[in-house]
Amino acid sequence: MAVQKSLRLAEVAGLLNLPLHGDGDKWLQGLAALDSAGPQQLSFLANVKYRSQLNSSAAGAVILHPSMVDDALAAKPDRALIVADDPYLAYARASALFDPVEKPRAGVHPSAVLESDNVHPSASIGANCVIEVGAEVGEGSVIAAGTVIGRDSRIGKHCLIHANVSIYHGVSIGDHCVVHSGVVIGGDGFGFAPSSVGWVKIHQLGGVRIGSRVEIGANSCIDRGALNDTVIGDGVIMDDFTMIAHNVEVGDGTAMAACSQVAGSAVIGKNCTLAGNIGVVGHIHIADGVHLTARSLVTKSIDKAGSYSSGGSPLMESNRWRKNTARLAKLDELYRRVQAMEKQLRTLHEDEN
Amino acid sequence: MAVQKSLRLAEVAGLLNLPLHGDGDKWLQGLAALDSAGPQQLSFLANVKYRSQLNSSAAGAVILHPSMVDDALAAKPDRALIVADDPYLAYARASALFDPVEKPRAGVHPSAVLESDNVHPSASIGANCVIEVGAEVGEGSVIAAGTVIGRDSRIGKHCLIHANVSIYHGVSIGDHCVVHSGVVIGGDGFGFAPSSVGWVKIHQLGGVRIGSRVEIGANSCIDRGALNDTVIGDGVIMDDFTMIAHNVEVGDGTAMAACSQVAGSAVIGKNCTLAGNIGVVGHIHIADGVHLTARSLVTKSIDKAGSYSSGGSPLMESNRWRKNTARLAKLDELYRRVQAMEKQLRTLHEDEN
Amino acid sequence: MAVQKSLRLAEVAGLLNLPLHGDGDKWLQGLAALDSAGPQQLSFLANVKYRSQLNSSAAGAVILHPSMVDDALAAKPDRALIVADDPYLAYARASALFDPVEKPRAGVHPSAVLESDNVHPSASIGANCVIEVGAEVGEGSVIAAGTVIGRDSRIGKHCLIHANVSIYHGVSIGDHCVVHSGVVIGGDGFGFAPSSVGWVKIHQLGGVRIGSRVEIGANSCIDRGALNDTVIGDGVIMDDFTMIAHNVEVGDGTAMAACSQVAGSAVIGKNCTLAGNIGVVGHIHIADGVHLTARSLVTKSIDKAGSYSSGGSPLMESNRWRKNTARLAKLDELYRRVQAMEKQLRTLHEDEN
Repeated sequence: MAVQKSLRLAEVAGLLNLPLHGDGDKWLQGLAALDSAGPQQLSFLANVKYRSQLNSSAAGAVILHPSMVDDALAAKPDRALIVADDPYLAYARASALFDPVEKPRAGVHPSAVLESDNVHPSASIGANCVIEVGAEVGEGSVIAAGTVIGRDSRIGKHCLIHANVSIYHGVSIGDHCVVHSGVVIGGDGFGFAPSSVGWVKIHQLGGVRIGSRVEIGANSCIDRGALNDTVIGDGVIMDDFTMIAHNVEVGDGTAMAACSQVAGSAVIGKNCTLAGNIGVVGHIHIADGVHLTARSLVTKSIDKAGSYSSGGSPLMESNRWRKNTARLAKLDELYRRVQAMEKQLRTLHEDEN
Repeated sequence: MAVQKSLRLAEVAGLLNLPLHGDGDKWLQGLAALDSAGPQQLSFLANVKYRSQLNSSAAGAVILHPSMVDDALAAKPDRALIVADDPYLAYARASALFDPVEKPRAGVHPSAVLESDNVHPSASIGANCVIEVGAEVGEGSVIAAGTVIGRDSRIGKHCLIHANVSIYHGVSIGDHCVVHSGVVIGGDGFGFAPSSVGWVKIHQLGGVRIGSRVEIGANSCIDRGALNDTVIGDGVIMDDFTMIAHNVEVGDGTAMAACSQVAGSAVIGKNCTLAGNIGVVGHIHIADGVHLTARSLVTKSIDKAGSYSSGGSPLMESNRWRKNTARLAKLDELYRRVQAMEKQLRTLHEDEN
Repeated sequence: MAVQKSLRLAEVAGLLNLPLHGDGDKWLQGLAALDSAGPQQLSFLANVKYRSQLNSSAAGAVILHPSMVDDALAAKPDRALIVADDPYLAYARASALFDPVEKPRAGVHPSAVLESDNVHPSASIGANCVIEVGAEVGEGSVIAAGTVIGRDSRIGKHCLIHANVSIYHGVSIGDHCVVHSGVVIGGDGFGFAPSSVGWVKIHQLGGVRIGSRVEIGANSCIDRGALNDTVIGDGVIMDDFTMIAHNVEVGDGTAMAACSQVAGSAVIGKNCTLAGNIGVVGHIHIADGVHLTARSLVTKSIDKAGSYSSGGSPLMESNRWRKNTARLAKLDELYRRVQAMEKQLRTLHEDEN
């Protein structure tokens, strides 16, 4: 496990700007969950479901909601506490404080191939990177080893582009973005015209525009547009293996869990939450604030906020599943047979009366 | 958005070998859709569905079908027109003309590691590429930055292998192919024998043979064969995240949308079209000319051309979906209950008569 | 197709430690399937299903079960045979003998960037690799071209890390592991807290611990843990495009076919077999010895060994599928209508008697 930074409790509370109960001089050697934290670690209670873990936890300090303070001190009077209206958010902010990863120093590694004049002197260009002609890397951004930034593409300020990322030409990324290893941005959208001699490629002349505070998970793909750009809004977060086809638009603040797949020209609203492995077919619109449960396939536009689902059956023993699923090929017939019986029953009933 | 090349209208019509109405001296600064094109842009009407956009479009010139010429000129007599029997195909060809991306110059970048004598002098080997012993790169092919071509593998003529592609040993790629970033070709197929000491690896001794005019989308994987080769035919097009397992064969002209997954030794015919995220289990055959709708799972061979589907329910509000989907665990029971009622009704009916 | 090594039959039998019938001096130029093997090739009969291929096969030698020897010699007395209680396992072991890929020589390629002192002199570090400060590469391990090993990460002995792999800091990999191209290990888990100003990143402070004899397929992702580590046991095998989210634990000997997706904090037992494209939601437990059929989605814990399934309908012609699948939106209603009819029928029946 990676070693975390050490900080004094008072320093943590101060940086989080949150009130503290207990000994501020105590050294903390990192964050841990309630059930595994030791006396040198900070933990948090963000979900009342885990309330029972609080009393038995050995954590040296705990971030919790004001309503939990009395209980916590009654059970263990010497426990240090950081009090937060939103303990989960406070934990997120604390996680940044304990992160031991240091920013690489500014400058261009001698093994990097720098063809551009637009790299800010405070940026860090790692080993074996390639920054093509006209590409721009903004203030304080870090480009890790082996990453390629294509011609005239633009990385904003304070971005972190991890190792072995491939960014094609004509891609624009805002500020404070994180792009994980293996991501490909600006590859060609899947456009071909049929012809008597086979598929004829439609050159993808658009680019990709990505907002600020966007995070893109490892090995994701965001394709360039056919004519207009593919557009990812501000504050969008995408997990690993996200597939964004050409000319998709994703609204600000939308979160997409791993393996989500969005087909060409689909428009996803703001503040949507897609659980894992969602499929969205092309050319449809999804309203703001839509939630989709895991593995749903969206084949029509969704006009209003809410939670939606589609997909298969619950998990069963395979033998039972085989019997049930085979019936799906006769479901329409079954429906019609039920309708016919209902009609017969009505007739029988009328005959009786 | 990437800037497109500028061309005179007459030049475009000439290169497309298509008749022109209007001022051939007009400069065009690129292609755009009917609803966003300006007077300096070429657009196209490929689908009668968008016919209504024609009259309101500000496009300086439009590619359209001969049957639309009179309408178009009646509505806007000074609109320039390029007349094509297949306007979508003409648009595809025009897209190549306006593509601003220039081919990198021939030669080997000084940072590349070239262990092979078989690189054609007209080929371009990018920064930090590695071309291993015996690997061949044909006339006019471009290998972009960070790509690795394994021992004795062969890239044909006029191919474009984008950045950070990994090609193992013993892979053969034909002419005029495009391979996008992050693609892995020739990784080991998933073959292991169970034993008392755990899984024993079956070394994958076959290779991969890819035809000509093939395009492979970003971050796709094509595994090497166990004994024989994995084979991709001529003119196959694959979108991002395509998974081709060992010893699969894909027939000429087949198109596979993003995230399609083909298990070992499956054989897919010619000119099939797989919509997004198709699954094909191992060791089955799919006939030529089969179309599969999005997210279908093919568990048995398909013997004749046609459109096939499988998969889950339509999208519903999650509450409603939960109720419906729970019933799937009792579908076989429901079916039997309906059968029992039908029998009872027949008895009742007989009793009556 | 890659050329295989040539070996004398007696040498093969000797290395496999298995009895031999026939001329041990015969040269074998590799392994092939029964239906394609020639007189210079070794084949195997591992599945009685292919028994009929044995007599017609031209294979110069065959690995088979003792019970097949008499039949085989009766049909073709001069066929050489290697006799194995488990012919499939013997084939797996033979595949290693014929594999022509030579281990690269020890040492660091001059183009590699080596920042660490912990690379064993017998290890091989390929062209353009980056080995960051404190990273360890064990005895006999091979790191292929373009791979990046992050700060303080540890690769054990006799591992093979293929080209263009990205390993972040704080990752530990055991001995005798194979990691294919494009894999990303240690990327951030998908953790964010909602706030009034958008998603706030939860820094992922855990690492990744991978056991020994693990194989990871091309373009897979294994994310680092939020606080504790993500853990992959000994002898686990994963096919291409496997997605392992933060804090997942995978038990020893479990096999995961391509495109399997495991969400955060799920725990998968030992010796499970996941067919292709399984989904496992977060925070659930799967017992040892569970088998999951292709494309199943596991939404609840599984407490005992066995074969389980979920998912969509069988493949049908699309027209028929559309009718059937539309009924799924009314399945709960259908169920209730059947219940109502059953009640009516009971009443009618009582009226009759």
